[in-house]
Amino acid sequence: MRVGVLTGGGDCPGLNAVIRGLVRKGVQEYGYEFTGYRDGWRGPLEGDTVPLDIPTVRGILPRGGTILGSSRTNPLKEADGIRRIKENIAKQEVDALVAIGGEDTLGVAARLYDEYGVPCVGVPKTIDNDLSATDYTFGFDTAVGIATEAIDRLHTTAESHMRVLVVEVMGRHAGWIALHSGLAGGANVILIPEQRFDVDQVCAWVTSRFKASYAPIVVVAEGAVPKDGEAVLKDGTLDSFGHVRLSGVGEWLAKQIESRTGKEARTTVLGHVQRGGTPSAFDRWLATRFGLHAIDAVRDGDFGKMVALQGTDIVRVPIAEATARLKTVDPKLYEEVGVFFG
Amino acid sequence: MRVGVLTGGGDCPGLNAVIRGLVRKGVQEYGYEFTGYRDGWRGPLEGDTVPLDIPTVRGILPRGGTILGSSRTNPLKEADGIRRIKENIAKQEVDALVAIGGEDTLGVAARLYDEYGVPCVGVPKTIDNDLSATDYTFGFDTAVGIATEAIDRLHTTAESHMRVLVVEVMGRHAGWIALHSGLAGGANVILIPEQRFDVDQVCAWVTSRFKASYAPIVVVAEGAVPKDGEAVLKDGTLDSFGHVRLSGVGEWLAKQIESRTGKEARTTVLGHVQRGGTPSAFDRWLATRFGLHAIDAVRDGDFGKMVALQGTDIVRVPIAEATARLKTVDPKLYEEVGVFFG
Amino acid sequence: MRVGVLTGGGDCPGLNAVIRGLVRKGVQEYGYEFTGYRDGWRGPLEGDTVPLDIPTVRGILPRGGTILGSSRTNPLKEADGIRRIKENIAKQEVDALVAIGGEDTLGVAARLYDEYGVPCVGVPKTIDNDLSATDYTFGFDTAVGIATEAIDRLHTTAESHMRVLVVEVMGRHAGWIALHSGLAGGANVILIPEQRFDVDQVCAWVTSRFKASYAPIVVVAEGAVPKDGEAVLKDGTLDSFGHVRLSGVGEWLAKQIESRTGKEARTTVLGHVQRGGTPSAFDRWLATRFGLHAIDAVRDGDFGKMVALQGTDIVRVPIAEATARLKTVDPKLYEEVGVFFG
Amino acid sequence: MRVGVLTGGGDCPGLNAVIRGLVRKGVQEYGYEFTGYRDGWRGPLEGDTVPLDIPTVRGILPRGGTILGSSRTNPLKEADGIRRIKENIAKQEVDALVAIGGEDTLGVAARLYDEYGVPCVGVPKTIDNDLSATDYTFGFDTAVGIATEAIDRLHTTAESHMRVLVVEVMGRHAGWIALHSGLAGGANVILIPEQRFDVDQVCAWVTSRFKASYAPIVVVAEGAVPKDGEAVLKDGTLDSFGHVRLSGVGEWLAKQIESRTGKEARTTVLGHVQRGGTPSAFDRWLATRFGLHAIDAVRDGDFGKMVALQGTDIVRVPIAEATARLKTVDPKLYEEVGVFFG
Repeated sequence: MRVGVLTGGGDCPGLNAVIRGLVRKGVQEYGYEFTGYRDGWRGPLEGDTVPLDIPTVRGILPRGGTILGSSRTNPLKEADGIRRIKENIAKQEVDALVAIGGEDTLGVAARLYDEYGVPCVGVPKTIDNDLSATDYTFGFDTAVGIATEAIDRLHTTAESHMRVLVVEVMGRHAGWIALHSGLAGGANVILIPEQRFDVDQVCAWVTSRFKASYAPIVVVAEGAVPKDGEAVLKDGTLDSFGHVRLSGVGEWLAKQIESRTGKEARTTVLGHVQRGGTPSAFDRWLATRFGLHAIDAVRDGDFGKMVALQGTDIVRVPIAEATARLKTVDPKLYEEVGVFFG
Repeated sequence: MRVGVLTGGGDCPGLNAVIRGLVRKGVQEYGYEFTGYRDGWRGPLEGDTVPLDIPTVRGILPRGGTILGSSRTNPLKEADGIRRIKENIAKQEVDALVAIGGEDTLGVAARLYDEYGVPCVGVPKTIDNDLSATDYTFGFDTAVGIATEAIDRLHTTAESHMRVLVVEVMGRHAGWIALHSGLAGGANVILIPEQRFDVDQVCAWVTSRFKASYAPIVVVAEGAVPKDGEAVLKDGTLDSFGHVRLSGVGEWLAKQIESRTGKEARTTVLGHVQRGGTPSAFDRWLATRFGLHAIDAVRDGDFGKMVALQGTDIVRVPIAEATARLKTVDPKLYEEVGVFFG
Repeated sequence: MRVGVLTGGGDCPGLNAVIRGLVRKGVQEYGYEFTGYRDGWRGPLEGDTVPLDIPTVRGILPRGGTILGSSRTNPLKEADGIRRIKENIAKQEVDALVAIGGEDTLGVAARLYDEYGVPCVGVPKTIDNDLSATDYTFGFDTAVGIATEAIDRLHTTAESHMRVLVVEVMGRHAGWIALHSGLAGGANVILIPEQRFDVDQVCAWVTSRFKASYAPIVVVAEGAVPKDGEAVLKDGTLDSFGHVRLSGVGEWLAKQIESRTGKEARTTVLGHVQRGGTPSAFDRWLATRFGLHAIDAVRDGDFGKMVALQGTDIVRVPIAEATARLKTVDPKLYEEVGVFFG
Repeated sequence: MRVGVLTGGGDCPGLNAVIRGLVRKGVQEYGYEFTGYRDGWRGPLEGDTVPLDIPTVRGILPRGGTILGSSRTNPLKEADGIRRIKENIAKQEVDALVAIGGEDTLGVAARLYDEYGVPCVGVPKTIDNDLSATDYTFGFDTAVGIATEAIDRLHTTAESHMRVLVVEVMGRHAGWIALHSGLAGGANVILIPEQRFDVDQVCAWVTSRFKASYAPIVVVAEGAVPKDGEAVLKDGTLDSFGHVRLSGVGEWLAKQIESRTGKEARTTVLGHVQRGGTPSAFDRWLATRFGLHAIDAVRDGDFGKMVALQGTDIVRVPIAEATARLKTVDPKLYEEVGVFFG
């Protein structure tokens, strides 16, 4: 048995832990051999491989990124993409594929399996935690930890100067990172893509915080959108999802707050640091277990499935189903957290 | 409505986050007043209180420990303990008690409610994660993170000198910290109280690691016990649970490894640093939500219950039931992790 | 003896440690009393004070920011500013002033002492480390540590996608943070305000790094300026110092690299997180000792002086002299570090 | 020109940064070739080498430990040791040796150069910071940072239970780590090997801290010794230096405090975690510059010298002189810090 492995989409702390889990168990317990594909779907599409065995995976557990490289190559958009993949994996005598990635990467795996019978197992990866069917995805806890530490630091700066600090965190379509890091960091306002925000309400919270003699921290997901779309259209641009363009909403909001409240406001865009570096212990645990269970799915011939976390158990769910719906923040949960606003 | 709050047992990162959650929601949404009891059950027993309101809980979210103090005072062991508690809470016009603590603290709350009708709500706290009915307890993630960082550091020392490093972590009756930090830290051997260990097997894993030209890290829970109890009895002492005395098993094991393998071995006992300091983002999230949901249970008059995490939901379970059984590591999970031994 | 204390300019980790050092030694060893002035020079200007004694300074050592607040108020620019300060400190029976701040804050202290005989002692503070006469200023080590950790994280992201990552760090007029964090983080290019950079040379280093199969990290101080000023003038703006406007050079450079090398480039602007949060152990040590020695200068009646670090000794130097010249990066040191470029 | 490199003695964060600095500059600027010797002086003694070139040193900057391995082998104690070293370096066509290590390792280098004319350059390494002639040694800042973070964490545990926490840190003959981490961590008592301590005085400080309603942290260097030597002799053992045996003084002191003050006391022995893991930014900077300057000494033929930090400059001093005297804590500095005791 020879198993191909690829990692697609944006990088994410824990990818290497998955790869290590797959290989350690696959080789030691099942006697499998492995082929690493380089740069996501580009690897099987172009037949670009790297060796993958026990020595290769030594020491990679605490390392961020992916030793296999990643890309956003989508074989479904390539002429003849599927045929080339089937040919390449046949040529390399690969009997099963483990695809580690987000919605796009797993979507390809689902179609490869459903429509073309390529034996695929999926491992969910999204730093945004927005994949349904799994309680958490790895990388998310690390990102939340980094954002929380940044917010902790910004509090002291805000207090010293009695300024508003707007922190823009990742989250284009779902506000999980904003919600968790905002709560954990003691933010006074948290804005998420799931609920259009009212700048006047934000300013009211900001003002109320100053009245209590504290300086406010506003955490805003990059995909958050104000209620009054036209206000934004004058100052920024909306992308095809109707979201403010990346790295724009924080700056925009800070300016609005300054002009409406008369208080100084500063913006910090956390950016790529949220997705790099060593994974948290939680993410190493989760990612490793995903790897161990994904290779079990291969052994069981249980293809077209994705591993997922439910409670403390790792289960298997159909890939197609799992990626069909974005997991967004429940309005009730947002309301629950809202007790800390202002 | 006046709500009394106490924190009992060993301290744990996240206690202050629970208190803040209780008070913020209780005051702002339900108009409650609060009374803080000092040092666990000693507070209501002796009528020792501290003010607890919105200003008191400002800024405590990221702080470890507990602003209310803690102790192991058990009113059930005090002459007339229950009566004195009933009298004191009546005198202070406290209508409901929220008890934050482990098995012992919650056990008292359960009896107070069941047998004497004192309206209690419980919030589970154990850094060891060994309380059934909840997927995780707060403080555990922080402890695992600290232990994992220590193991990360010890790898480089072990490699430079080609020595065995034995790391003793918390966990008297359950091996959760050892299991999670050992896996996340890439340990080569993990020993837990749930399964008696065989020193010869440990030495075989150690030797196999050296053969691969790496230095082994052995993570051992403080409550782990070797198979051959007599060997220990010669070198150390067993406590009333049949466990090696605190801070003994690491040193003992290192000596055994040295004498049996001829390799140098060193021990690090992580100790109290595992339970101190700022909580991780995960624990701040969990502890805060426990606080918010516990005050909802008070509002609902749903007493005798404990809040618990199931998946991503906070639910309520009967305290008595929840504390009846220790949550230990499932043999299957231990076996799953065993693929990384050696 | 009553000593007034103020903190001016941008906040900086270690300010509270200085204040604690002053008060602990002043009260305990010399029996002094203290008056805290709020928000830098605004405090003595408007007679706005806060109590400052042993209980006030308990627990502030590890806290970032300043319990006294800060501002950029300059009494020399206020009508009658000096007279009002003299009147207020007389009214509050303050016998000596300790001013903790950067070039601007200390410049006022120097003039107050030299021209008006107000007994002042200075404590140097600049996160940029650009004050001559002292080997290091507190806050700098913390900022370098934060930036280095960010660069560590960005490496894995850069490698996974084989992208250029441009990291913009603080440093308007001096490149110390860029130089230290760039070296410590293993950056492949470091650009500082002291030496105009050649975009083609930057691109050559970037390309050479890719040729070695690694992804490049470019660290650029916010005040760095390209050689060809006109190129910038087309894309951005130069401020009155001839420097690219804050938060502009990183983005600008990333675009240049993309268009000239054809490689993807991303920018991270670290911003305010560099100056917030708990000080490093080094900064706590340095800041505390500055506080202890500044109060000794007060006791000695040695006014018009500033404390400074020389080797491992704290010495006193005339404020006026110390702030006369910006401490910039020596070209030889920049060349020394240049061995790691490319 | 071929340069041999070895690392001797206990491991220390920054060793790899030195090696990288040597090799990058040696190869790129001077066209040298390198030979790595394995495990300190054992390498040249037995002719045990590893390849050392640009690819070997890629990515090692942030890694703790040493890629060359280390040992305490002393060729001066081996029959014919010097002759074997001379023969081996001749056989391997090594023209100069760079020895990175502490007193012992550099002592060998000094004698090799002085008495046998072997061209050696030294790089000082001691995590204890106790080598005269240099302001700081690398690894020290990392150790102080780790100890400070641990002390920060222990404060919350101490406060919650109103217990004494005794923290034993490294430092057999010099108290630098205890002094710096104790000050930075806000300890209430700091005990160092340079000054015998009086247990009654320690108890007085402990009691005074409790009176102020805070819980005391006692930081004690492993080599600290009580005034009344006999008290120790009853409870522990003194080694040949007259110091309490490693890992003993903390436990011993905690027991004394408990029995004399009636307060609970707990001990944490930080141990090996202090010397492992990624170096701080300060240590990466210092270690890298030591490497760059050591290879310059080789190029200049300036043998028998050691690089050293003086202020912000790297200078060269005779090895023999530099290692002649232990750098201990000046009584005046200890007294300066004493203002925070109690």
